[in-house]
Amino acid sequence: MSVEEVKEAPLEQEPQQETKEPEPVATYKAIVLTGFGGYDKLKVELKKDTPTPKSGEILVRVKACGLNFADLMARQGLYDRLPASPPLVPGMECSGLVEAVGDDVTDRKVGDSVIVMNRAGLWSELVVIPVSNTFLMPDGMSFEEAAAIPANYVTAYMMIYDFANLRPNQSILIHMAAGGVGTAATQLCKIVKDVTIFGTASAAKHEVIKEQGVTHPIDYSTLDYADEVRKISPNGVDIVLDPLGGSDTTKGFNLLKPMGKIVLYGAANLLTGPKRNPLAIAKLWWNKFTINSLQLLHSNKAVCGYHLGYLQIDQIQDAVTKLLSLYKEGKIKPRIDSVWSFEQIGDAMKQMQERRNIGKVILVPEAKKAEN
Amino acid sequence: MSVEEVKEAPLEQEPQQETKEPEPVATYKAIVLTGFGGYDKLKVELKKDTPTPKSGEILVRVKACGLNFADLMARQGLYDRLPASPPLVPGMECSGLVEAVGDDVTDRKVGDSVIVMNRAGLWSELVVIPVSNTFLMPDGMSFEEAAAIPANYVTAYMMIYDFANLRPNQSILIHMAAGGVGTAATQLCKIVKDVTIFGTASAAKHEVIKEQGVTHPIDYSTLDYADEVRKISPNGVDIVLDPLGGSDTTKGFNLLKPMGKIVLYGAANLLTGPKRNPLAIAKLWWNKFTINSLQLLHSNKAVCGYHLGYLQIDQIQDAVTKLLSLYKEGKIKPRIDSVWSFEQIGDAMKQMQERRNIGKVILVPEAKKAEN
Repeated sequence: MSVEEVKEAPLEQEPQQETKEPEPVATYKAIVLTGFGGYDKLKVELKKDTPTPKSGEILVRVKACGLNFADLMARQGLYDRLPASPPLVPGMECSGLVEAVGDDVTDRKVGDSVIVMNRAGLWSELVVIPVSNTFLMPDGMSFEEAAAIPANYVTAYMMIYDFANLRPNQSILIHMAAGGVGTAATQLCKIVKDVTIFGTASAAKHEVIKEQGVTHPIDYSTLDYADEVRKISPNGVDIVLDPLGGSDTTKGFNLLKPMGKIVLYGAANLLTGPKRNPLAIAKLWWNKFTINSLQLLHSNKAVCGYHLGYLQIDQIQDAVTKLLSLYKEGKIKPRIDSVWSFEQIGDAMKQMQERRNIGKVILVPEAKKAEN
Repeated sequence: MSVEEVKEAPLEQEPQQETKEPEPVATYKAIVLTGFGGYDKLKVELKKDTPTPKSGEILVRVKACGLNFADLMARQGLYDRLPASPPLVPGMECSGLVEAVGDDVTDRKVGDSVIVMNRAGLWSELVVIPVSNTFLMPDGMSFEEAAAIPANYVTAYMMIYDFANLRPNQSILIHMAAGGVGTAATQLCKIVKDVTIFGTASAAKHEVIKEQGVTHPIDYSTLDYADEVRKISPNGVDIVLDPLGGSDTTKGFNLLKPMGKIVLYGAANLLTGPKRNPLAIAKLWWNKFTINSLQLLHSNKAVCGYHLGYLQIDQIQDAVTKLLSLYKEGKIKPRIDSVWSFEQIGDAMKQMQERRNIGKVILVPEAKKAEN
C-alpha cells in the first residue's frame, strides 16, 4: 500500500493563512507519519501556535516519549487503532511538565510532572490532553522511566495479574523477554514468589535478561523454544504470553499445563522487515490459531486476547495506580535501552525492528545523540 | 445406542466360582450402569466379597454420594470420561467412614470420616480407593454435605478463583443458579466484596436463590437472559460461567465487558430429556462457539474451558484444601436439595433432569424415603 507523502502537513485542520507581518512565532516539533511504508515515512515537522487547553484539558511540555511495537505496525499500515489516516502524529505514551491547565482542572497544576496516555498524537513537544489521560509521576521517577510505564507495564500487568492470574510456584514463557513488555513482564513476575520464567531472546542478551530475573533464557533463533521448555519442564508451563501470533500461538497453547492460560497480545510475526510483507501477512492469517467451544471444554485451558488500544482509560486506571505504587516500593524499574531524538525516529525504530534493544526505546524532543 | 443389559455383573473381573457349602457371605450394594439409555439403565446390584485395600489404599463404608450432571450425560452415553464401557459402577464423589487401611497408609485410620473423589465407581456401599483420592472431613460436616463438595465446589472454585479471577465490584452471570454448581458458585462469589450476581433459574426458585446470594434472579424460561442482564448492566458482565454450550456460549461471550472471562464447563443443552437426543447434539455442534486468534486479539476477552474429569487429583488438591478451610470458617455450606436411596436413582436423576432441584441431589445406600 502506498500513500502519497504529505510534507509539512498541519496536525489539525487549521486554515493556512499567511501573515504579512513577520512576528516571533512560538514553534514546536512533532513527528508526523506522512503515509504508510518504511522508516522514511516519519518526518519531524515544526508546528506553529502553541495549543491552548480547553476545559478539562492540560498543556504538557513533553520530555520523553515511548516507542512501541504498535508504532512499527502503524507505520506499515498494520495497526487498526490509529484514530485517523496519515498524515497524523503518532505516539501513545509520553511524560512531561504541565505548562498550562484549562478551566475546571483542579487536580493538576503548572509544573506537575505527568505521565500521558492516548491513542495517538504524543510524539510532540507540546501536547494538549484531557486530564483524565494523565497520571502524576511519583517522586524520583525520571521522565524516561515515566514514558516507559504506560504501554509496556500496563500491558504486562493486566496480562499477568488479571488474565493469567499468576500465583506462587507457577511457570511462565515470556517471548521477546528483552523487549519493552518482556522486561516489564519479567519484573512483574518476580514480585510473585518462586515463579519460573522461561524467556526467549538472542544469545547475546541472555546475560542481561538473567540479571533482570529470567530463570531460563532460550535462544529462539537457534533452538526450538517449545523443545527447550519441555527439556526443563516436561509438562509445560502455566502461562504463555504471546506477542507473535500465527503458528506460535498453537505452539504456546500446546505448551500449557492443565489450568494453563495463553494471552495473545500481538502479531510481531508480521514484522519481518521495514516494509509491509504480504507473505508474512498471508502466513500469519493461514496459521492463525482457531478453537471451538467443544475442544476448549476438554482442554482445561484459557485463551485470552489483550489489546491496550481497545481499552478506555478508566479500564486501565487500576493497573496504572498499582504500577505507580510498585514503582514507589522499588519493585519495578523500567529498563531504558536507549534514548533517541525526534530526528532519529528512523534509527530508533530500526533498533526495535532489528530486535537490538534490551528494554525500552525512548524518544526525546531535544536533538541529542543516542545513548545506549 | 443400545447396549444389552447385564444383570448382576461383577464389579471386577473376579472368577465366578460357585461354592457348595452355604456360608454367610458379606454383601454390599452398588448402582450399576448396565448400558446407555434412559433411567432404567441403572440397577442396584448386590456385590459379594468385601474388597481388601492394597498398599496405599483404604476401604470406605460409603454414607452419601453426590449426583452430577455428568452422571446424567454418562447414562446417555454423552460423557467421555467414563473409565470403561458399561456395565460399570458410576459415581465420582462420596463420603464415608474408613473401615480398613492397606499397608503403608499412615495418614488415615479406621473410623476416620473422609471425602472421596474418583472418575467412577463410588455409588457403592463399599469402596476401595487410593488414599490420595480422599480428604479428611472437617468437624461438624455431615456426610451429605461432604458428598456435595468435590465436583460442584471444586468446579466452582477453580472456575471463579483461578480462570475468572473474580475481584471486588465485579459482576458475574451464573446459569442454573439453583443447581449444584450454581449454589456453590453463588456462595463462593459472596466471599468477594460487592460482587453483583445475575443468576438464571425458573421463577419458582427465585426466592431461594436470592436468599443464597443471587442479586438479580432471571427467569430464563420466559425471558431472554442477555436482554435482562443488559437492562440492569448495559455494558454486560465481567464473568460468565457457561454450563450450557451451543449458541449460549456465543451469547455469553458477547455479554462480556472488556477484560471479561467466559468459562465453559458443560453442554447441558444436550440434555433435553431422559434419552439421547440426536437433534440436540446436532444443534449444539452446529451452534458451537468458534474463535480465532485474530478475533480474540482485538476482543480483550478470555475464553476458558474447564473439565474436572480431565484433571488429576494433585491438580485439584489446593482447591479442596481451601474449600475445607472455607467450610470451617463458615463461609460455604452445601445446600442439600434432596436425599434419595440407591434404589431411587432413577427418581433422583429425574429431579435433576427436570431441573426441580435447588442445590445438591444426594444418594444414600440405605433404603429410605426421599427428603425434600
